[in-house]
Amino acid sequence: MPGELIVALAQQNYKIGDLEGNSSKIVGAIEDAKAQNVDLIIFSELAITGYPPLDLLTQENFVKAAVDAISGIAKHCNGIAAIVGAPSINYNTKGKPLFNSAWFLNDGQATPVVHKTLLPTYDVFDEYRYFQPNKDFNILSFKGHRIAVTICEDIWDDRPVDKSFDRNHLYTLSPMQKLAALKPDMAVNIAASPFSYTQHETRRQVLCKKAAAYNMPLYYVNQTGANCELIFDGGSMVIDNKGRVARRLEFFKEQLFITDGSIFEKAPEEADADLPEGPWPKDIVLIHKALICGLRDYFQKSRLKKAVVGLSGGLDSAIVAALAAEALGSDNVHGLLMPSQYSSDHSISDAEALVANTGISSDIVPIKDIFKSFEAALEGCFKGRKADLTEENIQARIRGTLLMAYSNKFGHILLNTSNKSEAAVGYGTLYGDMAGGLSVVGDVYKSDLYRLAAYLNRDREVIPQNTITKAPSAELRPDQKDSDSLPEYHILDPILFRYIDQNLSFSEIVEQGFDKDLVARVLTMVNRNEHKRFQTPPVLRVSTKAFGPGRRMPLVAEYRLY
Amino acid sequence: MPGELIVALAQQNYKIGDLEGNSSKIVGAIEDAKAQNVDLIIFSELAITGYPPLDLLTQENFVKAAVDAISGIAKHCNGIAAIVGAPSINYNTKGKPLFNSAWFLNDGQATPVVHKTLLPTYDVFDEYRYFQPNKDFNILSFKGHRIAVTICEDIWDDRPVDKSFDRNHLYTLSPMQKLAALKPDMAVNIAASPFSYTQHETRRQVLCKKAAAYNMPLYYVNQTGANCELIFDGGSMVIDNKGRVARRLEFFKEQLFITDGSIFEKAPEEADADLPEGPWPKDIVLIHKALICGLRDYFQKSRLKKAVVGLSGGLDSAIVAALAAEALGSDNVHGLLMPSQYSSDHSISDAEALVANTGISSDIVPIKDIFKSFEAALEGCFKGRKADLTEENIQARIRGTLLMAYSNKFGHILLNTSNKSEAAVGYGTLYGDMAGGLSVVGDVYKSDLYRLAAYLNRDREVIPQNTITKAPSAELRPDQKDSDSLPEYHILDPILFRYIDQNLSFSEIVEQGFDKDLVARVLTMVNRNEHKRFQTPPVLRVSTKAFGPGRRMPLVAEYRLY
Repeated sequence: MPGELIVALAQQNYKIGDLEGNSSKIVGAIEDAKAQNVDLIIFSELAITGYPPLDLLTQENFVKAAVDAISGIAKHCNGIAAIVGAPSINYNTKGKPLFNSAWFLNDGQATPVVHKTLLPTYDVFDEYRYFQPNKDFNILSFKGHRIAVTICEDIWDDRPVDKSFDRNHLYTLSPMQKLAALKPDMAVNIAASPFSYTQHETRRQVLCKKAAAYNMPLYYVNQTGANCELIFDGGSMVIDNKGRVARRLEFFKEQLFITDGSIFEKAPEEADADLPEGPWPKDIVLIHKALICGLRDYFQKSRLKKAVVGLSGGLDSAIVAALAAEALGSDNVHGLLMPSQYSSDHSISDAEALVANTGISSDIVPIKDIFKSFEAALEGCFKGRKADLTEENIQARIRGTLLMAYSNKFGHILLNTSNKSEAAVGYGTLYGDMAGGLSVVGDVYKSDLYRLAAYLNRDREVIPQNTITKAPSAELRPDQKDSDSLPEYHILDPILFRYIDQNLSFSEIVEQGFDKDLVARVLTMVNRNEHKRFQTPPVLRVSTKAFGPGRRMPLVAEYRLY
Repeated sequence: MPGELIVALAQQNYKIGDLEGNSSKIVGAIEDAKAQNVDLIIFSELAITGYPPLDLLTQENFVKAAVDAISGIAKHCNGIAAIVGAPSINYNTKGKPLFNSAWFLNDGQATPVVHKTLLPTYDVFDEYRYFQPNKDFNILSFKGHRIAVTICEDIWDDRPVDKSFDRNHLYTLSPMQKLAALKPDMAVNIAASPFSYTQHETRRQVLCKKAAAYNMPLYYVNQTGANCELIFDGGSMVIDNKGRVARRLEFFKEQLFITDGSIFEKAPEEADADLPEGPWPKDIVLIHKALICGLRDYFQKSRLKKAVVGLSGGLDSAIVAALAAEALGSDNVHGLLMPSQYSSDHSISDAEALVANTGISSDIVPIKDIFKSFEAALEGCFKGRKADLTEENIQARIRGTLLMAYSNKFGHILLNTSNKSEAAVGYGTLYGDMAGGLSVVGDVYKSDLYRLAAYLNRDREVIPQNTITKAPSAELRPDQKDSDSLPEYHILDPILFRYIDQNLSFSEIVEQGFDKDLVARVLTMVNRNEHKRFQTPPVLRVSTKAFGPGRRMPLVAEYRLY
């Protein structure tokens, strides 16, 4: 039966709030598909607004304009039908004002035929803030087919209860079960499912399981591209009724894929066929793609071109500069080397090697004299006090001020270079090295940055070898090493991962064999630094739990170790 | 009938996560009440965890400890019963893992007798993130009484649909209607209802209407005290069955109030009896109390004592310093005067007058030489470029760095002095004057700060007269005035209020008679500065819409004026 329909999957990259731009992208795909005799073209969840539109959805005129835009697109739907994600108005006098809907566009008309049932409210998601959940289940009939349309989370109704207590089974409804009772012959899921380095595999499993369980082919369309911290990887799929992936679209790319029933007659694809060959770990390959996508879209969608990075000769800044050079072009990246009296010789030579390897431009601005002028100005205030963390922080903030001055003068956006390990334990200076418009690797642990550096060097040296091999140091006092203040990263990161990403408790981590005092020390550092993380830039999210809107811990609170 | 019961309202100030501290506070009130023959003592919503516990609720061991704490408290409930707000476990295999419950403690046992039905998910609230909504309605029977217990929002089921489109009628259920069918003879509402300068009046109207509509006395217990940005004003009430306030407890204070039925025989109270007499506008009087409470609790609950403020001689910093002196004691507040070559003479003299008026300590640290050292360091980079905003921002960031140095050296917390008008239009320097641990007046428009200054000067001059009368200026270049870059505040603020607080659209504001180009210019400034507000400190919330977690606008987005 489904063989009779020619279906197009439109995997596109939308900009939040850009109703005109998103509309013309959608219309473009409709016209392309029409020219290729497509019967039904499918777009992702909230395509018209981009995902997540956040509190733009509380602006009535914005919503009206979004609905008007959908009607405008429908005028192009003659001889072709489209499923497009967009908000719709809840005309009921009770309930939230909107639905998160799949609109059906056909014969020049647009109708919100399906509303989302399962509204996620965990991690970065707040859909109950805006939307009324659906309670009514209907099948979309089109050209003799009975299509079960669901929206993203709707098809994740039996996700496992995870140990993190962050379980998401608000739901007493299974939309697919309800729909299956109405005897559909194919399923469509439109999604805005953000990337994490495990998500593509979880998602494949969930979707394949559903297609097999209900014995139906499943057309899955996800958004691609990044909207600030959230990166969408696309990876839309056609899955056969045995739960095998007949075709998966590319990651992090726009793509229009057209298919008919014959696709199911071919051998199923290898699930990860489009990941590069080689010995590189898949998580690192995907994180690399995601960060490039996140950087590129942050700049493009903000109408910005150029970035500035403070280069310390260390690993974090080298990786951020290399990623920026790849994402934005090396002509658009500038490095600032800001040595102090405590900088080692190699800090300059390593940074210069990075500059040479990446082809970015750079300047050297020593901070010693500025630091002296601060010391002189504060002499009266600080009389009789010894040097301490204060003086280290002053150096970091001088650098932050210089970087922002460069940013202001030339219109470059400062990229923040903090990693997830530092952000977790508060090893950084607010308004100093924690400054910037975007945190590029703030969701990547230091241990993983070493793996990423190796991957960046896969063809030739990009990250200087000495940058990789030397001991990490903030170089804010003589002979300082990170390991003076912190456990070694290979010891620290596994504890952080369990506490932050897995949401395990103190006692659960200790039960896994970690040293009790060390775990207590690490968790206390994490808990004490909420105030720093509160003021940091948006962090490109590549894990299932990044700092930022997906992790909402109280700032003024009593934290005990349970 | 209700006359037979002696009821205590326990209006308390809890610290987030402090299960031990909150427990001992609750037990203390139970013991006090027991000694006074109280039958039933009522505590506020989520009293055991403090409100809002945020993602602490995703930590299973924390929740278990909270439930254990409730059982511990129950051991004190012999000869007295208590209603205490706390999370409880949802043992159903489907649904969110917790309920937001009212526990009934009696005969040494604790039972979660009522779960919250209406979970708010607007503004600062995210209760669907954690809690399963209640669907079952039961009456609490105690000593022959039938008590309808509801939790905060449950009694706000028919709040008006407001023009802001931020309407909150998710609800198809009216808990009070459901409960009324079960023939209760009294009502209890336990709440964690944060302050805004209109909230006390809205709240009174809603509660009185319900008591009258259902012809029942209503005992309302709210939390008091501040938890980071959220300030709770208490104002718990006993309302008679005609909807008249028989007693309202104080604002912003802990109080244990014991009453029996005889209270309903007296004449009802004046609703605002405990607001100070005088010609001062109530909103300003309340905002003043709220800010003092917010400041005091931020420091106390963070175990901090001392604050540092940058004193420019201007209104914002003068008010923040005066509030800090009042909240923390003038011995605990230090002002830093940091004149530049562009500072007017009066900037120093006005700041010194403020120091004298408030009794705080101060230092003068001129920034001219530091600024010169930055200019010298950047000379190579900036060759051939004219001075512009960059140099203004460098000055602001030098001041930020000096203030943070003072903070680091002496353990003082830097108070941020940005006001809501500046924060809205982005008139401030990130990491400069936008730095700080807490934004004290970031939810108060500049026009209201003038009214607050007048109130602070009600008995004697605190804010120097010249600070109030001179034209506002950032003094970052010769003869600069705020009005060079911005509309006058009395023109700007009414537009901001309509866009931010009332969530009106561009066209709605223009329809009210404001100049179209001006409105476009102001709204564009607001929309363009999300990236700055993303990185600012927590803002004490005193309005219905503060910057921070209650207003979630996309940072990378296309904003159009509808």
